[in-house]
Amino acid sequence: MQTVTVDLGPRSYPIHIGSGLLAESSLWTPHLGNGQVMLVTNTVLAPRYLAPVHAALGDWRVETLILPDGEATKTLATAERIWDALLAARCGRDATLIALGGGVIGDLTGFAAACYQRGIDFIQMPTTLLAQVDSSVGGKTGVNHPRGKNMIGAFHQPRCVIADLDTLRTLPERELRAGLAEVIKYGLIADAPFFDWLETNLDALLDRDSRALTHAIAVSCRTKAAIVAADERESGVRALLNLGHTFGHAIETGMGYGAWLHGEAVATGMLMAADLSARLGQLAPAEADRIQALLTRAGLPVQAPASLDAGRFLELMAVDKKVQAGQLRLVLLRGIGQGELRADVDSRPLRVLLEQFPRGP
Amino acid sequence: MQTVTVDLGPRSYPIHIGSGLLAESSLWTPHLGNGQVMLVTNTVLAPRYLAPVHAALGDWRVETLILPDGEATKTLATAERIWDALLAARCGRDATLIALGGGVIGDLTGFAAACYQRGIDFIQMPTTLLAQVDSSVGGKTGVNHPRGKNMIGAFHQPRCVIADLDTLRTLPERELRAGLAEVIKYGLIADAPFFDWLETNLDALLDRDSRALTHAIAVSCRTKAAIVAADERESGVRALLNLGHTFGHAIETGMGYGAWLHGEAVATGMLMAADLSARLGQLAPAEADRIQALLTRAGLPVQAPASLDAGRFLELMAVDKKVQAGQLRLVLLRGIGQGELRADVDSRPLRVLLEQFPRGP
Repeated sequence: MQTVTVDLGPRSYPIHIGSGLLAESSLWTPHLGNGQVMLVTNTVLAPRYLAPVHAALGDWRVETLILPDGEATKTLATAERIWDALLAARCGRDATLIALGGGVIGDLTGFAAACYQRGIDFIQMPTTLLAQVDSSVGGKTGVNHPRGKNMIGAFHQPRCVIADLDTLRTLPERELRAGLAEVIKYGLIADAPFFDWLETNLDALLDRDSRALTHAIAVSCRTKAAIVAADERESGVRALLNLGHTFGHAIETGMGYGAWLHGEAVATGMLMAADLSARLGQLAPAEADRIQALLTRAGLPVQAPASLDAGRFLELMAVDKKVQAGQLRLVLLRGIGQGELRADVDSRPLRVLLEQFPRGP
Repeated sequence: MQTVTVDLGPRSYPIHIGSGLLAESSLWTPHLGNGQVMLVTNTVLAPRYLAPVHAALGDWRVETLILPDGEATKTLATAERIWDALLAARCGRDATLIALGGGVIGDLTGFAAACYQRGIDFIQMPTTLLAQVDSSVGGKTGVNHPRGKNMIGAFHQPRCVIADLDTLRTLPERELRAGLAEVIKYGLIADAPFFDWLETNLDALLDRDSRALTHAIAVSCRTKAAIVAADERESGVRALLNLGHTFGHAIETGMGYGAWLHGEAVATGMLMAADLSARLGQLAPAEADRIQALLTRAGLPVQAPASLDAGRFLELMAVDKKVQAGQLRLVLLRGIGQGELRADVDSRPLRVLLEQFPRGP
């Protein structure tokens, strides 16, 4: 087992990464409050992982809420279902929510915890690679709005994160690949040697080799933890974590939530950011090619959807949370391992990129 | 004009109290961000106060949202209307919400600001006595749930509070009296000389004498500001501010939101807390009588609703946010000016109080 700490003073917490952790209650029950526990998961995961977690909870008063699978669940209406269930079970401020699932369950449950009685504790038990390396760490919680992803939300840190590698064994191939997009992101924005390591070890990761996965998850979490500790509420450096996300959110919103997986949209978005960086002369074309090659090997999409033309992209990007004073802020690259937040990108080259970037079917 | 500062480090903010402040834009426009401004108010206040605020905003891009009046508006569905409007107007993270109204508008708008894009700025312009002395100060925001008041919410501090005394001129008599309940509360929990002052000056306050009102609001805000600065998230002393609120929320929820004004329910609740304190031998009966006399002079209800029997009260109080580990925490009095949080009140005397406390029609 590896442990990474997110250092946020009184709100610091550990991320434990390893096999068999869901059943190892001594790791995470100390982080439960004195009140009830409500487990939130989905219909796909419940039959697989609810039993060990439930068993580990022994004597606790436990409620369970099983939600539909998929991004379409990440709505305010579903958050309301969690609040209804908490109130029906008479849960007080000392109750703890456990999010057992991928990014959808984690973001949604974290948001429900943030707002229930103005904030109760929660624990993240991420069951997808994407959630283990990204969404379960850092305290960003929220739900989608028909007009934009994660538009309603809160910063609310979990008490601990339990990344059990065993849950990745049953992860569909497509979701594993989507998770790799966020892993590759850490190499791109901050860690060139890790990008090299990924080029060497991608096949081991796709084969779900435990050692390779543990290393990739731990490095990703360490990078994210350092960035979050430096800038919890995204007033500066944390914005780098959004590499590919402004383009990616436009794809997700434009195509309807769930059509593209988040990681898939981010992969294409990162390549669009790399392409724009190259067009602006700040990234060597050879490096953009290496990025495209790695994403392609990972089986991730490297073409934007044909149905989103440049105009529609711009429209969708205009409601992005990173817009300030009407000026879009974009994360670009100055090299592999060197992300850079820019608020001064000209609309002209952006439009050219959106017009010329390869479209898929 | 008097100014009270809420001292919360980087989140500190001023409360300005005086006449004509809504139109004095130099006081509050420096607290607006660089983005758009959305004014949230209700159908009763809009015709009276929207024009001066709008005029003061001159060149800003301003959106306006006018909601129905009353506690029944304080729901998640209305918060969603605010988010829809913000997104429709393409407001970014640099937008600012202005809450122009009483506690309902302030709590609701503050909650909408807390969750929009994980938190944007907002300004409180309270137009009721209750909002000026209590709900607009301290960062508690939220909406009601059918099962309990303020069950969904967040801590989110405003950028400034503009308490314009002129707005109290048109305040209905009943709402003025309800606001006095919270003013009296500050005397009860922390400031015996202020309670004496209230006994002497109650008639001036009921006559809406500007000097008396300014003093009462400033003292109330100073007490609240000191408590909030010491304990922003209510892990300790801040709970004192809930004197009368556990009983009061049970009345509000049990009778249907809006049937009793919040201040009315708190008045009866404070008297129930005083009565229980006297029954437990920790408050002199003569002091309980003084409290009852002042509340009666203020025209506030001193009898609980006949339709809520002891059993129903206990049921409603069990979902209160102040319940911890199944144990109700109650604010009691050790004397006028001496509130005390107790988690060890026996269920027996509580039940006797609930059975014997006078009932109204």
